[in-house]
Amino acid sequence: MADPIKFNFDFTSAYSYPAACKIDSVAGRHGREVDWRPISLGHMFKATGAGFLTVPTKLKYAARDAARLCAYLGVRQTMPKVFPMDGKLARRVFWHTKTSDADLARRFALAVFDAYWGDGNDMSKAEQLASIAGPLGITADDIAAAGDDAEAKAAEQAAFDEALEAGMFGAPTMFVDDEMFWGADRLDQLDWWLGEKAAGMGGI
Amino acid sequence: MADPIKFNFDFTSAYSYPAACKIDSVAGRHGREVDWRPISLGHMFKATGAGFLTVPTKLKYAARDAARLCAYLGVRQTMPKVFPMDGKLARRVFWHTKTSDADLARRFALAVFDAYWGDGNDMSKAEQLASIAGPLGITADDIAAAGDDAEAKAAEQAAFDEALEAGMFGAPTMFVDDEMFWGADRLDQLDWWLGEKAAGMGGI
Repeated sequence: MADPIKFNFDFTSAYSYPAACKIDSVAGRHGREVDWRPISLGHMFKATGAGFLTVPTKLKYAARDAARLCAYLGVRQTMPKVFPMDGKLARRVFWHTKTSDADLARRFALAVFDAYWGDGNDMSKAEQLASIAGPLGITADDIAAAGDDAEAKAAEQAAFDEALEAGMFGAPTMFVDDEMFWGADRLDQLDWWLGEKAAGMGGI
Repeated sequence: MADPIKFNFDFTSAYSYPAACKIDSVAGRHGREVDWRPISLGHMFKATGAGFLTVPTKLKYAARDAARLCAYLGVRQTMPKVFPMDGKLARRVFWHTKTSDADLARRFALAVFDAYWGDGNDMSKAEQLASIAGPLGITADDIAAAGDDAEAKAAEQAAFDEALEAGMFGAPTMFVDDEMFWGADRLDQLDWWLGEKAAGMGGI
Protein backbone atom coordinates (compact mmCIF):
# COMPACT_ATOMS: atom_id res chain seq x y z
CA MET A 1 0.00 0.00 0.00
CA ALA A 2 1.34 3.40 -1.00
CA ASP A 3 2.02 6.00 1.70
CA PRO A 4 -0.77 8.47 2.50
CA ILE A 5 -0.78 11.85 0.78
CA LYS A 6 0.40 14.45 3.30
CA PHE A 7 -2.09 17.34 3.40
CA ASN A 8 -0.59 20.33 5.24
CA PHE A 9 -3.05 23.13 5.90
CA ASP A 10 -4.11 25.97 8.19
CA PHE A 11 -7.71 26.62 9.23
CA THR A 12 -7.31 30.34 8.59
CA SER A 13 -6.06 29.82 5.03
CA ALA A 14 -8.65 30.69 2.36
CA TYR A 15 -7.13 28.23 -0.09
CA SER A 16 -6.81 25.39 2.44
CA TYR A 17 -10.61 25.35 2.75
CA PRO A 18 -11.56 24.28 -0.80
CA ALA A 19 -8.62 21.85 -0.80
CA ALA A 20 -9.96 20.28 2.42
CA CYS A 21 -13.37 19.87 0.76
CA LYS A 22 -11.87 18.02 -2.23
CA ILE A 23 -8.66 16.24 -1.22
CA ASP A 24 -10.19 12.99 0.06
CA SER A 25 -12.21 12.39 -3.10
CA VAL A 26 -9.22 13.12 -5.36
CA ALA A 27 -7.00 10.72 -3.37
CA GLY A 28 -9.77 8.14 -3.15
CA ARG A 29 -10.04 7.91 -6.94
CA HIS A 30 -6.52 6.51 -6.90
CA GLY A 31 -6.87 4.35 -3.80
CA ARG A 32 -4.74 6.67 -1.68
CA GLU A 33 -5.29 7.73 1.93
CA VAL A 34 -4.81 11.32 3.15
CA ASP A 35 -2.83 12.28 6.25
CA TRP A 36 -4.33 15.58 7.49
CA ARG A 37 -1.76 17.90 9.13
CA PRO A 38 -2.86 21.35 10.39
CA ILE A 39 0.04 23.75 11.03
CA SER A 40 0.45 27.50 11.51
CA LEU A 41 0.80 29.30 8.18
CA GLY A 42 1.80 32.46 10.05
CA HIS A 43 4.80 30.65 11.49
CA MET A 44 5.55 29.21 8.05
CA PHE A 45 5.55 32.71 6.53
CA LYS A 46 7.94 33.85 9.26
CA ALA A 47 10.24 30.86 8.76
CA THR A 48 10.43 31.19 4.96
CA GLY A 49 9.85 34.88 4.24
CA ALA A 50 7.19 33.84 1.70
CA GLY A 51 4.25 35.79 3.14
CA PHE A 52 2.36 38.17 0.89
CA LEU A 53 0.11 39.96 3.35
CA THR A 54 2.31 43.06 3.09
CA VAL A 55 1.51 43.51 -0.62
CA PRO A 56 -1.86 45.32 -0.73
CA THR A 57 -2.80 44.57 -4.35
CA LYS A 58 -1.91 40.88 -3.92
CA LEU A 59 -3.94 40.60 -0.72
CA LYS A 60 -6.94 42.25 -2.39
CA TYR A 61 -6.64 39.93 -5.39
CA ALA A 62 -6.31 36.84 -3.17
CA ALA A 63 -9.58 37.59 -1.38
CA ARG A 64 -11.41 37.85 -4.70
CA ASP A 65 -9.57 34.87 -6.20
CA ALA A 66 -10.28 32.56 -3.25
CA ALA A 67 -14.00 33.34 -3.41
CA ARG A 68 -14.01 32.81 -7.18
CA LEU A 69 -12.08 29.53 -6.84
CA CYS A 70 -14.70 28.25 -4.39
CA ALA A 71 -17.49 29.23 -6.80
CA TYR A 72 -15.64 27.50 -9.64
CA LEU A 73 -15.23 24.33 -7.53
CA GLY A 74 -18.81 24.45 -6.28
CA VAL A 75 -17.82 25.03 -2.64
CA ARG A 76 -19.95 27.49 -0.67
CA GLN A 77 -17.83 30.23 0.90
CA THR A 78 -18.43 33.22 3.18
CA MET A 79 -15.69 35.69 4.06
CA PRO A 80 -15.24 35.15 7.83
CA LYS A 81 -16.09 37.95 10.21
CA VAL A 82 -12.70 37.45 11.91
CA PHE A 83 -9.74 37.11 9.53
CA PRO A 84 -7.08 35.97 9.95
CA MET A 85 -8.19 33.73 12.81
CA ASP A 86 -6.13 32.41 15.69
CA GLY A 87 -6.46 28.69 14.90
CA LYS A 88 -4.14 27.45 17.65
CA LEU A 89 -6.81 25.76 19.78
CA ALA A 90 -8.52 24.19 16.75
CA ARG A 91 -5.17 22.72 15.73
CA ARG A 92 -4.51 21.42 19.24
CA VAL A 93 -7.93 19.74 19.38
CA PHE A 94 -7.17 18.16 16.01
CA TRP A 95 -3.78 16.76 17.05
CA HIS A 96 -5.11 15.67 20.48
CA THR A 97 -7.98 13.81 18.80
CA LYS A 98 -5.72 12.30 16.12
CA THR A 99 -3.69 10.47 18.79
CA SER A 100 -6.63 8.10 19.31
CA ASP A 101 -8.80 8.52 16.19
CA ALA A 102 -7.43 10.02 12.95
CA ASP A 103 -10.75 9.84 11.14
CA LEU A 104 -12.56 11.68 13.92
CA ALA A 105 -9.83 14.34 13.80
CA ARG A 106 -10.42 14.68 10.04
CA ARG A 107 -14.17 15.07 10.54
CA PHE A 108 -13.51 17.68 13.22
CA ALA A 109 -11.25 19.58 10.80
CA LEU A 110 -13.95 19.56 8.13
CA ALA A 111 -16.47 20.85 10.68
CA VAL A 112 -14.13 23.71 11.64
CA PHE A 113 -13.64 24.61 7.97
CA ASP A 114 -17.39 24.46 7.34
CA ALA A 115 -18.15 26.75 10.29
CA TYR A 116 -15.31 29.20 9.57
CA TRP A 117 -15.23 29.42 5.76
CA GLY A 118 -18.70 28.07 4.98
CA ASP A 119 -20.66 30.08 7.57
CA GLY A 120 -18.06 32.78 8.28
CA ASN A 121 -18.05 32.28 12.06
CA ASP A 122 -15.03 32.76 14.29
CA MET A 123 -13.70 29.41 15.54
CA SER A 124 -10.83 30.54 17.75
CA LYS A 125 -12.45 29.98 21.16
CA ALA A 126 -13.22 26.84 23.16
CA GLU A 127 -16.98 27.36 23.31
CA GLN A 128 -17.16 28.00 19.56
CA LEU A 129 -15.24 24.80 18.86
CA ALA A 130 -17.41 22.89 21.37
CA SER A 131 -20.56 23.82 19.44
CA ILE A 132 -19.38 21.98 16.33
CA ALA A 133 -17.29 19.30 18.08
CA GLY A 134 -20.09 18.15 20.41
CA PRO A 135 -22.15 16.45 17.70
CA LEU A 136 -19.02 14.50 16.69
CA GLY A 137 -18.54 13.23 20.25
CA ILE A 138 -15.70 15.59 21.19
CA THR A 139 -16.64 17.16 24.54
CA ALA A 140 -15.79 20.47 26.21
CA ASP A 141 -13.55 18.46 28.55
CA ASP A 142 -11.73 17.01 25.54
CA ILE A 143 -11.18 20.53 24.21
CA ALA A 144 -9.83 21.74 27.55
CA ALA A 145 -7.52 18.72 27.73
CA ALA A 146 -6.30 19.36 24.17
CA GLY A 147 -5.21 22.88 25.08
CA ASP A 148 -2.85 21.47 27.72
CA ASP A 149 -1.72 18.38 25.78
CA ALA A 150 2.05 18.54 25.37
CA GLU A 151 1.96 15.52 23.07
CA ALA A 152 -0.48 17.26 20.71
CA LYS A 153 1.75 20.36 20.71
CA ALA A 154 4.81 18.23 19.93
CA ALA A 155 2.98 16.40 17.12
CA GLU A 156 2.07 19.71 15.48
CA GLN A 157 5.63 21.01 15.84
CA ALA A 158 7.01 17.81 14.29
CA ALA A 159 4.59 18.13 11.34
CA PHE A 160 5.60 21.78 10.90
CA ASP A 161 9.32 20.99 10.99
CA GLU A 162 8.93 18.12 8.52
CA ALA A 163 6.90 20.25 6.08
CA LEU A 164 9.36 23.17 6.29
CA GLU A 165 12.28 20.81 5.69
CA ALA A 166 10.44 19.30 2.70
CA GLY A 167 10.06 22.74 1.08
CA MET A 168 6.65 24.00 2.20
CA PHE A 169 6.22 27.80 2.22
CA GLY A 170 2.45 28.29 1.75
CA ALA A 171 -0.84 26.49 2.35
CA PRO A 172 -2.27 24.14 1.45
CA THR A 173 0.72 21.99 0.50
CA MET A 174 0.30 18.36 -0.46
CA PHE A 175 3.11 15.84 -0.72
CA VAL A 176 2.57 12.76 -2.88
CA ASP A 177 5.62 10.70 -1.94
CA ASP A 178 8.39 13.27 -2.72
CA GLU A 179 6.34 15.39 -5.13
CA MET A 180 5.10 18.71 -3.73
CA PHE A 181 1.89 20.45 -4.80
CA TRP A 182 1.16 23.94 -3.47
CA GLY A 183 -2.35 25.34 -3.60
CA ALA A 184 -5.96 24.26 -3.96
CA ASP A 185 -5.46 25.06 -7.64
CA ARG A 186 -3.04 22.13 -7.91
CA LEU A 187 -5.62 19.43 -7.10
CA ASP A 188 -6.16 18.86 -10.84
CA GLN A 189 -2.45 18.27 -11.33
CA LEU A 190 -2.27 16.07 -8.24
CA ASP A 191 -5.11 14.00 -9.72
CA TRP A 192 -3.27 13.82 -13.08
CA TRP A 193 0.00 12.97 -11.34
CA LEU A 194 -1.55 10.05 -9.47
CA GLY A 195 -3.08 8.81 -12.74
CA GLU A 196 0.27 9.02 -14.56
CA LYS A 197 1.91 7.17 -11.68
CA ALA A 198 -0.76 4.46 -11.85
CA ALA A 199 -0.10 4.13 -15.59
CA GLY A 200 3.60 3.62 -14.82
CA MET A 201 4.57 6.86 -16.57
CA GLY A 202 6.02 8.51 -13.50
CA GLY A 203 4.77 11.99 -14.40
CA ILE A 204 7.27 14.33 -16.02
CA MET B 1 -18.57 43.32 -29.77
CA ALA B 2 -17.05 42.80 -26.31
CA ASP B 3 -13.68 44.36 -25.55
CA PRO B 4 -10.59 42.19 -26.10
CA ILE B 5 -9.15 40.24 -23.17
CA LYS B 6 -5.99 42.03 -22.02
CA PHE B 7 -3.13 39.55 -21.80
CA ASN B 8 -0.20 41.03 -19.85
CA PHE B 9 2.95 38.93 -19.93
CA ASP B 10 6.74 38.86 -19.89
CA PHE B 11 8.84 36.71 -22.21
CA THR B 12 11.11 35.63 -19.34
CA SER B 13 8.15 34.46 -17.20
CA ALA B 14 7.84 30.68 -16.99
CA TYR B 15 4.09 30.88 -16.43
CA SER B 16 3.49 33.42 -19.19
CA TYR B 17 4.71 30.84 -21.72
CA PRO B 18 1.97 28.17 -21.30
CA ALA B 19 -0.62 30.96 -21.02
CA ALA B 20 0.57 32.39 -24.34
CA CYS B 21 0.19 28.94 -25.92
CA LYS B 22 -3.43 28.63 -24.76
CA ILE B 23 -5.00 32.08 -24.36
CA ASP B 24 -6.18 32.58 -27.96
CA SER B 25 -8.03 29.27 -28.07
CA VAL B 26 -9.72 29.86 -24.70
CA ALA B 27 -10.85 33.34 -25.76
CA GLY B 28 -11.85 32.10 -29.20
CA ARG B 29 -14.29 29.58 -27.70
CA HIS B 30 -16.25 32.55 -26.42
CA GLY B 31 -15.85 34.78 -29.47
CA ARG B 32 -13.41 37.12 -27.71
CA GLU B 33 -10.25 38.69 -29.09
CA VAL B 34 -6.97 38.90 -27.14
CA ASP B 35 -4.88 42.05 -26.79
CA TRP B 36 -1.27 40.92 -26.20
CA ARG B 37 0.76 43.24 -23.95
CA PRO B 38 4.36 42.34 -23.04
CA ILE B 39 5.74 44.26 -20.07
CA SER B 40 8.70 43.92 -17.68
CA LEU B 41 7.85 41.61 -14.76
CA GLY B 42 11.07 42.71 -13.03
CA HIS B 43 9.82 46.30 -13.01
CA MET B 44 6.41 45.06 -11.83
CA PHE B 45 8.05 43.22 -8.90
CA LYS B 46 9.95 46.40 -8.00
CA ALA B 47 6.80 48.53 -8.20
CA THR B 48 4.64 46.21 -6.08
CA GLY B 49 7.08 44.37 -3.79
CA ALA B 50 5.45 41.10 -4.88
CA GLY B 51 8.58 39.34 -6.18
CA PHE B 52 9.49 35.92 -4.79
CA LEU B 53 12.94 35.35 -6.22
CA THR B 54 14.46 36.01 -2.79
CA VAL B 55 12.68 32.99 -1.24
CA PRO B 56 14.87 29.98 -2.16
CA THR B 57 12.31 27.21 -1.50
CA LYS B 58 9.64 29.08 -3.46
CA LEU B 59 11.97 29.67 -6.39
CA LYS B 60 12.96 25.99 -6.42
CA TYR B 61 9.31 24.92 -6.28
CA ALA B 62 8.31 27.35 -9.06
CA ALA B 63 10.88 25.87 -11.46
CA ARG B 64 9.50 22.37 -10.88
CA ASP B 65 5.89 23.54 -10.88
CA ALA B 66 6.20 25.47 -14.15
CA ALA B 67 7.69 22.42 -15.91
CA ARG B 68 4.96 20.19 -14.45
CA LEU B 69 2.25 22.66 -15.48
CA CYS B 70 3.53 22.60 -19.06
CA ALA B 71 3.53 18.78 -19.04
CA TYR B 72 -0.02 18.80 -17.64
CA LEU B 73 -1.16 21.23 -20.36
CA GLY B 74 0.68 19.34 -23.11
CA VAL B 75 3.09 22.20 -23.85
CA ARG B 76 6.71 21.26 -24.55
CA GLN B 77 9.12 23.10 -22.28
CA THR B 78 12.87 23.34 -21.86
CA MET B 79 14.50 25.27 -19.03
CA PRO B 80 16.31 28.11 -20.87
CA LYS B 81 20.10 28.28 -20.78
CA VAL B 82 19.86 31.96 -19.78
CA PHE B 83 17.32 32.73 -17.04
CA PRO B 84 16.03 35.24 -16.30
CA MET B 85 16.45 36.76 -19.73
CA ASP B 86 16.70 40.43 -20.68
CA GLY B 87 13.55 40.65 -22.81
CA LYS B 88 13.70 44.37 -23.47
CA LEU B 89 14.52 44.20 -27.18
CA ALA B 90 11.95 41.43 -27.78
CA ARG B 91 9.31 43.64 -26.13
CA ARG B 92 10.33 46.66 -28.23
CA VAL B 93 10.12 44.64 -31.45
CA PHE B 94 6.68 43.49 -30.39
CA TRP B 95 5.37 47.00 -29.66
CA HIS B 96 7.04 48.43 -32.78
CA THR B 97 5.40 45.75 -34.92
CA LYS B 98 2.03 46.12 -33.22
CA THR B 99 1.78 49.74 -34.38
CA SER B 100 1.15 48.52 -37.91
CA ASP B 101 0.12 44.85 -37.51
CA ALA B 102 -1.16 43.45 -34.19
CA ASP B 103 -1.49 39.89 -35.51
CA LEU B 104 2.08 39.86 -36.79
CA ALA B 105 3.21 41.12 -33.36
CA ARG B 106 1.31 38.24 -31.75
CA ARG B 107 2.94 35.69 -34.06
CA PHE B 108 6.33 37.20 -33.27
CA ALA B 109 5.61 36.86 -29.53
CA LEU B 110 4.67 33.20 -29.95
CA ALA B 111 7.89 32.62 -31.92
CA VAL B 112 9.96 34.23 -29.14
CA PHE B 113 8.22 32.05 -26.53
CA ASP B 114 8.73 28.94 -28.66
CA ALA B 115 12.45 29.64 -29.09
CA TYR B 116 13.04 30.67 -25.46
CA TRP B 117 10.81 28.28 -23.46
CA GLY B 118 10.28 25.57 -26.10
CA ASP B 119 13.89 25.24 -27.27
CA GLY B 120 15.61 26.91 -24.29
CA ASN B 121 17.58 29.42 -26.42
CA ASP B 122 18.51 32.92 -25.29
CA MET B 123 16.44 35.52 -27.14
CA SER B 124 17.86 38.74 -25.69
CA LYS B 125 20.01 39.82 -28.67
CA ALA B 126 19.13 41.32 -32.05
CA GLU B 127 20.65 38.51 -34.13
CA GLN B 128 18.85 35.86 -32.07
CA LEU B 129 15.54 37.65 -32.57
CA ALA B 130 16.28 38.12 -36.28
CA SER B 131 16.62 34.35 -36.73
CA ILE B 132 13.03 33.75 -35.70
CA ALA B 133 11.57 37.06 -36.90
CA GLY B 134 12.93 36.76 -40.45
CA PRO B 135 10.56 33.95 -41.51
CA LEU B 136 7.64 36.12 -40.32
CA GLY B 137 8.79 39.03 -42.50
CA ILE B 138 10.33 41.12 -39.72
CA THR B 139 13.80 42.12 -40.91
CA ALA B 140 17.04 42.93 -39.09
CA ASP B 141 16.40 46.58 -40.08
CA ASP B 142 12.97 46.41 -38.42
CA ILE B 143 14.59 45.08 -35.24
CA ALA B 144 17.19 47.85 -35.24
CA ALA B 145 14.43 50.43 -35.79
CA ALA B 146 12.36 48.94 -32.95
CA GLY B 147 15.23 49.41 -30.50
CA ASP B 148 15.19 53.15 -31.18
CA ASP B 149 11.42 53.57 -31.51
CA ALA B 150 10.26 56.05 -28.87
CA GLU B 151 6.63 55.32 -29.74
CA ALA B 152 7.10 51.59 -29.02
CA LYS B 153 8.77 52.44 -25.73
CA ALA B 154 5.90 54.75 -24.77
CA ALA B 155 3.30 52.12 -25.72
CA GLU B 156 4.97 49.57 -23.43
CA GLN B 157 5.18 52.08 -20.60
CA ALA B 158 1.49 52.95 -21.01
CA ALA B 159 0.54 49.25 -20.90
CA PHE B 160 2.69 48.77 -17.78
CA ASP B 161 1.15 51.77 -16.03
CA GLU B 162 -2.38 50.67 -16.89
CA ALA B 163 -1.79 47.10 -15.65
CA LEU B 164 -0.17 48.31 -12.42
CA GLU B 165 -3.07 50.68 -11.80
CA ALA B 166 -5.55 47.85 -12.45
CA GLY B 167 -3.91 45.65 -9.78
CA MET B 168 -1.34 43.53 -11.63
CA PHE B 169 1.59 42.25 -9.53
CA GLY B 170 2.68 39.05 -11.32
CA ALA B 171 2.64 37.47 -14.77
CA PRO B 172 0.72 36.46 -16.72
CA THR B 173 -2.26 38.61 -15.76
CA MET B 174 -5.41 38.61 -17.85
CA PHE B 175 -8.19 41.17 -17.57
CA VAL B 176 -11.66 40.20 -18.80
CA ASP B 177 -13.43 43.55 -18.65
CA ASP B 178 -12.78 44.45 -14.96
CA GLU B 179 -12.13 40.89 -13.75
CA MET B 180 -8.49 40.02 -13.10
CA PHE B 181 -7.00 36.54 -13.49
CA TRP B 182 -3.40 35.95 -12.40
CA GLY B 183 -1.50 32.92 -13.62
CA ALA B 184 -1.53 30.32 -16.36
CA ASP B 185 -3.35 28.18 -13.79
CA ARG B 186 -6.34 30.53 -14.01
CA LEU B 187 -7.12 29.82 -17.68
CA ASP B 188 -9.70 27.21 -16.60
CA GLN B 189 -11.46 29.79 -14.45
CA LEU B 190 -11.22 32.43 -17.18
CA ASP B 191 -12.87 29.93 -19.53
CA TRP B 192 -15.58 29.22 -16.92
CA TRP B 193 -16.04 32.93 -16.25
CA LEU B 194 -16.61 33.70 -19.94
CA GLY B 195 -19.12 30.85 -20.10
CA GLU B 196 -21.01 32.11 -17.04
CA LYS B 197 -21.07 35.59 -18.56
CA ALA B 198 -22.43 34.20 -21.82
CA ALA B 199 -25.15 32.39 -19.84
CA GLY B 200 -26.08 35.73 -18.24
CA MET B 201 -25.03 34.56 -14.79
CA GLY B 202 -22.28 37.12 -14.36
CA GLY B 203 -20.00 34.78 -12.48
CA ILE B 204 -19.90 35.03 -8.71
